[in-house]
Amino acid sequence: MTLGLKPQKLSRATFSDFGDVIEVDGSKRILINEGTTERFHDLANIDVESGSGHTLVNIFRGQMRPQPIDIKMMERHPLGSQAFIPLQNKPYVIVVAPVGKNVGPEDLKAFIADGTQGVNYKRDLWHHPLLVLEDNNNFLVVDRGGSGENCTEHWFTDTQGIAQIVL
Amino acid sequence: MTLGLKPQKLSRATFSDFGDVIEVDGSKRILINEGTTERFHDLANIDVESGSGHTLVNIFRGQMRPQPIDIKMMERHPLGSQAFIPLQNKPYVIVVAPVGKNVGPEDLKAFIADGTQGVNYKRDLWHHPLLVLEDNNNFLVVDRGGSGENCTEHWFTDTQGIAQIVL
Repeated sequence: MTLGLKPQKLSRATFSDFGDVIEVDGSKRILINEGTTERFHDLANIDVESGSGHTLVNIFRGQMRPQPIDIKMMERHPLGSQAFIPLQNKPYVIVVAPVGKNVGPEDLKAFIADGTQGVNYKRDLWHHPLLVLEDNNNFLVVDRGGSGENCTEHWFTDTQGIAQIVL
Repeated sequence: MTLGLKPQKLSRATFSDFGDVIEVDGSKRILINEGTTERFHDLANIDVESGSGHTLVNIFRGQMRPQPIDIKMMERHPLGSQAFIPLQNKPYVIVVAPVGKNVGPEDLKAFIADGTQGVNYKRDLWHHPLLVLEDNNNFLVVDRGGSGENCTEHWFTDTQGIAQIVL
């Protein structure tokens, strides 16, 4: 069985159960540097300290998957949050499901982010790996480094079926 | 007295005394997500744990200063590193000086980053606040949150004079 999954527009309100939206609009603003810089302050809960973890900064470069995009699995990082911030102002797709032991196609929510919006997945949130809509699309990624097993995958069973993104 | 200061091209080699260059070229690359994503791994030493600090993610929006740019002061963050990653692919100017008690115009080094290069100032490094070359220029900033006094400024004295960026 294939479940159609239509992404909704990403916003703090629609994404609040899953983590943070990293964007200027609606953020706390502090004027610094003699008035030449606005600081939009503390936009994500970077939660990486479990098991003596620490913050990593990385760049992820994503390639397109075959269209339409099939969602056949989800993953989660039990020891840390993971933030994605687009570096090339291109829209991208986000698929998440609530924190919990099990996940299937019927649990999924999809979002479309504009190229100025980053997201921070809260610790242990089910999410699909990076889904870009153009090749060679770079993101800054802020996640956890340190020992311990920090990735769990669940591939949907035949009984569960899959979901397919409807753009 | 005004000292002319010509920026050099930013690279890991030229910037190594001051912190990290956050870029794809020359980074450790790991293929993930069924081969659809390259992870350029662990690009910056995020050093924010002094005094029970934690990682903050922010957006800074910079405005141009009068041209040519006068460098009249420097600042440092004794409790944490601070990373800037350009979100709009625009070149920008970096001015730094070695870690130490004192700083004057003759200690400065200037760099020009292309719009794909971020930098991470190591803890306590003297640096000038954000210097953009176009208005409304956004950067992702990864720095330290937590208690404690984490900003020291030094305004150059009349005897020290100033520096002026030569583009």
